[in-house]
Amino acid sequence: MIRVLLVHDACLLRSALAERLAREPDLEVFHAPWRGARDRIGEVRPDVCVVDPDGDSTYASAEFGEQSHPVTGGLGSPLLVLVSGNRPGLLRRCTEAGALGYVDKASPPDRLLAGIRQVAAGLRFVDDSLGFGFLKAAQMPLTHRELLVLALAAGGAPVAEIANRLHLTNGTVRNYMAAITRKTGARNRIDAIRISRVEGWV
Amino acid sequence: MIRVLLVHDACLLRSALAERLAREPDLEVFHAPWRGARDRIGEVRPDVCVVDPDGDSTYASAEFGEQSHPVTGGLGSPLLVLVSGNRPGLLRRCTEAGALGYVDKASPPDRLLAGIRQVAAGLRFVDDSLGFGFLKAAQMPLTHRELLVLALAAGGAPVAEIANRLHLTNGTVRNYMAAITRKTGARNRIDAIRISRVEGWV
Repeated sequence: MIRVLLVHDACLLRSALAERLAREPDLEVFHAPWRGARDRIGEVRPDVCVVDPDGDSTYASAEFGEQSHPVTGGLGSPLLVLVSGNRPGLLRRCTEAGALGYVDKASPPDRLLAGIRQVAAGLRFVDDSLGFGFLKAAQMPLTHRELLVLALAAGGAPVAEIANRLHLTNGTVRNYMAAITRKTGARNRIDAIRISRVEGWV
Repeated sequence: MIRVLLVHDACLLRSALAERLAREPDLEVFHAPWRGARDRIGEVRPDVCVVDPDGDSTYASAEFGEQSHPVTGGLGSPLLVLVSGNRPGLLRRCTEAGALGYVDKASPPDRLLAGIRQVAAGLRFVDDSLGFGFLKAAQMPLTHRELLVLALAAGGAPVAEIANRLHLTNGTVRNYMAAITRKTGARNRIDAIRISRVEGWV
């Protein structure tokens, strides 16, 4: 039996998907919202942890904080993520978190079943339809430092606060923002943040 | 038999939820992504259209445009929306679109079943847990005109373009943005857009 823990915030969708998975004879399925996912992993000891890192709420990132975020920080369990090819930033963050399986949310459920079995066997699984998303993720033009500046700006921090947090001058922060706006092909800072959010970079 | 059309972009979650609903003896269930939802409604002629207006992708708003958006423009079928209490802006837009049913995504599936049956009978259905969200929606401090300015700014439009589209002077647009920032308790424009997006106003 493969023990699967499904983590998603919307109980309605999560429990329906869990019921579908539980109809497979080789799967034992548990589910939890993001809040409390860490405790459930300790109790369940899953062979595969299936997570939706995008979620429907802000919990996915807010509840756990940077260090212990289940995707960026690792849940200590083989990870299969439910993702979308048009969110290259999220794909890259999942890669950095060491996810083994990548299933397109637009796929039918049997792709998820194939992915779960492959990840449970310790193998990588990547849905074919995600290829272009991974290509875009690899072509990301922003540097790590620029992404940090962008994330703080997107959170509403004024230039002076960003400068203070990253030990930079105000002028340097403005230069970073100008570079970010140019590289993302945006019309202004707000547009750069919008584009980056849609693609899942912040 | 109640004919139900379930509209959601993520095939994985949509088909699992549709299977769950289809196990009820009094429901006949169809499902579709947002793209193509309008055509499916014509074919299926559902008694209840269950939609997730938040979706997982940008299609929900991008594909349909303002006039014909399935929530703001109306799908021509009794509407039940899957929503969250912490998105008051979205709740209000659903109200304005004339949705009859409001089911919390955090509810277990039997609440959705109760909602579907009530809406099919032509009655309003509101999940208890959404009360505070509706209260917040009623307390929205921004005017209709301010929301228009905010939506254009959030889309990345520069001040001059917003002024041009709404037949205002640049100075008036700046005054609107200052009022929006003050009323939302934000630190700056970017923060005002962030807060409004989280709450579902834009």
